[in-house]
Amino acid sequence: MDGRLVIIGGGAAGMSAASAARRVDADLEVVVLEASGYAAYGMCGIPYYLAGLVERAEDLLAYPPGYFRERRGIDLRLHAEATGLDPAARIVHYVQDGRAARLSYDRLIVAAGGAPTVPPIPGLGDPHVFTVRALEDAMALRGLLDAGRVGRALVVGAGYIGLEMAEALAARGVSVVVAELLPRVMPNLDEPVAALVEEEVRRHGIDLRLGSGLTEVRRRGGTLEAVIDGEGAPVDLVVVAAGVRAATTIAAGAGAATGPGGALLVDDRMRTSLPDVFAAGDCIAPHHLVLGGPAFVPLGPAANKTGRVAGTVAAGGDATFRGIVGTAVVKVFDLGVGRTGLTLAEAEAAGLAAVATDVVGKSRAKYYPGSAPVHVRLVHEPGGRLLGAQMVGRDGVAKRIDVAATALQAGFDVDDVAALDLSYAPPYAPVYEPILLAAQAAARHREPAAPLARGGRL
Amino acid sequence: MDGRLVIIGGGAAGMSAASAARRVDADLEVVVLEASGYAAYGMCGIPYYLAGLVERAEDLLAYPPGYFRERRGIDLRLHAEATGLDPAARIVHYVQDGRAARLSYDRLIVAAGGAPTVPPIPGLGDPHVFTVRALEDAMALRGLLDAGRVGRALVVGAGYIGLEMAEALAARGVSVVVAELLPRVMPNLDEPVAALVEEEVRRHGIDLRLGSGLTEVRRRGGTLEAVIDGEGAPVDLVVVAAGVRAATTIAAGAGAATGPGGALLVDDRMRTSLPDVFAAGDCIAPHHLVLGGPAFVPLGPAANKTGRVAGTVAAGGDATFRGIVGTAVVKVFDLGVGRTGLTLAEAEAAGLAAVATDVVGKSRAKYYPGSAPVHVRLVHEPGGRLLGAQMVGRDGVAKRIDVAATALQAGFDVDDVAALDLSYAPPYAPVYEPILLAAQAAARHREPAAPLARGGRL
Repeated sequence: MDGRLVIIGGGAAGMSAASAARRVDADLEVVVLEASGYAAYGMCGIPYYLAGLVERAEDLLAYPPGYFRERRGIDLRLHAEATGLDPAARIVHYVQDGRAARLSYDRLIVAAGGAPTVPPIPGLGDPHVFTVRALEDAMALRGLLDAGRVGRALVVGAGYIGLEMAEALAARGVSVVVAELLPRVMPNLDEPVAALVEEEVRRHGIDLRLGSGLTEVRRRGGTLEAVIDGEGAPVDLVVVAAGVRAATTIAAGAGAATGPGGALLVDDRMRTSLPDVFAAGDCIAPHHLVLGGPAFVPLGPAANKTGRVAGTVAAGGDATFRGIVGTAVVKVFDLGVGRTGLTLAEAEAAGLAAVATDVVGKSRAKYYPGSAPVHVRLVHEPGGRLLGAQMVGRDGVAKRIDVAATALQAGFDVDDVAALDLSYAPPYAPVYEPILLAAQAAARHREPAAPLARGGRL
Repeated sequence: MDGRLVIIGGGAAGMSAASAARRVDADLEVVVLEASGYAAYGMCGIPYYLAGLVERAEDLLAYPPGYFRERRGIDLRLHAEATGLDPAARIVHYVQDGRAARLSYDRLIVAAGGAPTVPPIPGLGDPHVFTVRALEDAMALRGLLDAGRVGRALVVGAGYIGLEMAEALAARGVSVVVAELLPRVMPNLDEPVAALVEEEVRRHGIDLRLGSGLTEVRRRGGTLEAVIDGEGAPVDLVVVAAGVRAATTIAAGAGAATGPGGALLVDDRMRTSLPDVFAAGDCIAPHHLVLGGPAFVPLGPAANKTGRVAGTVAAGGDATFRGIVGTAVVKVFDLGVGRTGLTLAEAEAAGLAAVATDVVGKSRAKYYPGSAPVHVRLVHEPGGRLLGAQMVGRDGVAKRIDVAATALQAGFDVDDVAALDLSYAPPYAPVYEPILLAAQAAARHREPAAPLARGGRL
C-alpha cells in the first residue's frame, strides 16, 4: 500500500501496529500520535515502580526513546493528542504542544487505549489526586513518595489496579485506606474467591472499607481531606482506581460502531465500521471465544496482538485475531490470583447453564518445602464444557491458570481437562495437579451447587 | 462383581487401583501384594529425603501405615513378592516372609512398577552399591549420609534420576562423580537443550564424565573402588541410575503381550492380552497421543491415572484412559527442565517430518526482579502441528510446559498455540509469553532448520 498510515495512540497496541505495518511495507509512511510524552511503556509495571522494585521510570519503556524513529522509521509524535476525526475527508485533527494541526490518512488505526473512570466527585482535580495510567503521573507520585511526603493515602476502588496500588503504597510505609462502593473486592472474580483476596489485603494492614463511597475531596487549610461515608479524614494523596473505560470519544463521535463497555466493535481483521479505520488495544471489544461475541476486557496481551493484526492488515498484509478468553493474573501481596474464561456470575449473566466446582490442592508435593494450598474454582456446564477457571494461592498459581486458558481455546469439557498429562516433580507439583483434581470433581458435578458461604473455605 | 481382586504391587498404580476398586464395589475382596515394606510411597521424593529437605522417610508416604487396611478395607500384604502367575488356573504364587504361598483371583491387576536397570558389571552386589527405588534402600543410604560416612560417591547414569541423585549427594557435602556411557546428559531431551543442563551440572562442581563407562566395582582391603575407563578410584558408595525397565517378568512369562521397552500392552481400559488380567503403572506401555501408539514412559501421574482406571474396570465399573503425551519436569540444581510430546530426535525416529524452533524468552517482565531467560524449543511439523516442547530456565519453567501438554492433547497447530490468551502480570510473565514467542517463530518456520551447534545458546 502506498500512502500514509496514521495511528492514534502510542501504547502497546499502537506501537505494535506501527511496527507490524512497517514490517509489511517498508515504504509506507507511518505516523503515530501519542498524547503523553512516552510511547510503548509498561503501564502494568507502574505499581512496581512506585513500590521501588523498579528503580527508574525509563525501565518501564519497552524500547529506548528514539528507537521507533531512528531504528524503525516510524514518525512518532509525542505530546500529540488527537481531538477529532473526519472519516469522509480522511483527516485526523490533533493538538501538539498547544497548537492545533491536521493530518490526512489513507488508513487509520485507533489505538487510543483505556481511560481511567473518574467518578463525578467534587475535588478530584486536586494535584494530589492521581489516576495512575500515564507515566508522567506515576513519576509525580513517586516523587512525593521518595520525598517522604506521604504518610496516609486513600485508594478509591478495590479492583485489581486499586489493590496493586494499595500494596505499592504500603510497601513504601504509607498507611493505606481503600474505599470500594461494592461490598466486595475484585469484581472480576466470583465472590467466594474474592473473599480470599479480601482476607489477604486485610492481613497486610490495609484499612479496607467495602460498601463505602468517597463523596468529596477538599482542602482544609493546607490539608487534603477525603470524605468517606460522610466523615472527613486527612490524607496526603488520593489514587483513583475506579475502573477503565474504552477511550473512544473521537472514533465513536465520528460514527464508529461500539459494543460492550462502549468499546469499538471490530471484525477479526480489526476493521471498524468506518472505511479504512481500524482499531486495536484497550479501546476495542474483541471476540470472546467462550461468550461467542464481543467483550470489553482491556489487558496487555490482547493489546499487543490486536495491534499487530491491525498494523499488518492496514499496511496491506493478512492477519486475523481469533479472540480472547479473558485470562488475567495479579499479585496481591503474597497471593497469586488468576482467572480465565467466565466467572460463575458472568456465565449466569450470559444465560449459560453453569455450575462451579471448588477444590483446594497443593502447589508442590505435600512433603516438599514451600508447598502451599492452591484454591481452584472451575466454572462449567454441569458435567460438561469448561467455561472458566479461577485460582488463588501463595505458590505457583500464575502459570497454572494458563492450562485452563488453553483448555478453553480448545473447547474442552471438564473430563478432557481431567485427562490432561500434566507435569509432576516434587519441587513443582503434586502427583495430582490441583487443576486435575478440580476437573475430576467437576466431571462428577452435574447439578447446580448450593452457594458457598461468603468467606468460607473454598 | 463378587469375588477377589488381587493386585501385584502396592506402589502408586497398585494402591490407586485398590482404592478405585473399593469405591466401585464395597464388597469386593481386594488383596495387594507388595514386595517391600511400604505401600504408596512417593518414590520421586527420595532425592529430597536424601538431601535432607524432607526429614523422615515416612513423610514420603501418601497415607499413614495401616490406613489402607483400617480405613479402606484393603488387604495389603507387605513383604509379599509375587513369583509366578497361572492365568488358566487364576492363581498368583508369591513369597511372604520367606514362605511360599498362593492366592486365587477372579480379577488380577499387575502393577509391579519399574525395576532399575542394573548393568552386568562385576561388583554391583556390594552393600554400598545402591539403586534408589525402594524406600528401604533410601533409608540405608540416608543412614550412611547422616553418619558422615560418605565423602565421595559415584553415580552411574546422567538421566534425570542420576542428576537428581547427584544434586542430593552434593547437597550433603559429598564429592560426586557422574559416569555416563552416552556423550551427553538427559537422553530424553534434544541435545542442544541437554547441553544447558550439562552446563548447570558442571557449574555446581559435579565431576561429570560423559562417554565414560563403569567397568567394575571392587574392594581393595576395606576400600570400595570404582573402575571408570580402566582407572580405579576409591569411592564410599555407588548409586546406579542407569534407567528403568518395566517389571513384567511374571506377566510376560505367563504369556501377556508386551510392546515398547518390554512393557505390557493394554487397551484403553487397562486390559492385557490375558483374560481378567489388567495392568497399570510403570510396567505398561500406554497409548501415546502424539505417536498414536503405545509408548513406555514410566512416570507418576500416568501410574496414578492408569491404576485408577484398572481398579475401576476390574471391579466392574467403567473408565477409560485416553493416553499420555510424555510430560515430565525435573529440577536440576537451579534449573527447571520440562518436556512434553516428542523431542526432535523422537519425532524423527518415528518417521515424522519435524523441525525444531528455539527461542529464548523471559520468565517475568524484563524490569521485574527475578526475571530470567526461559529457553523454549518447540518441535513441530513445518509450520504445522505441534509435536512436542522442551523448556529450560531458572524461573517459572515447570508449569509453563503444561500449556504445551494441553495444546498437544488438543492437537493444536503452532499457530493455534501462538493465538493463546495466556496470563500476563509483571511479577509472573512478560507481555509476550516465551511459549507464544516460540509459537510465532514456529508458525513462520516451514523448512528443516540447520542443526544447532552443540552447547550453543538456544
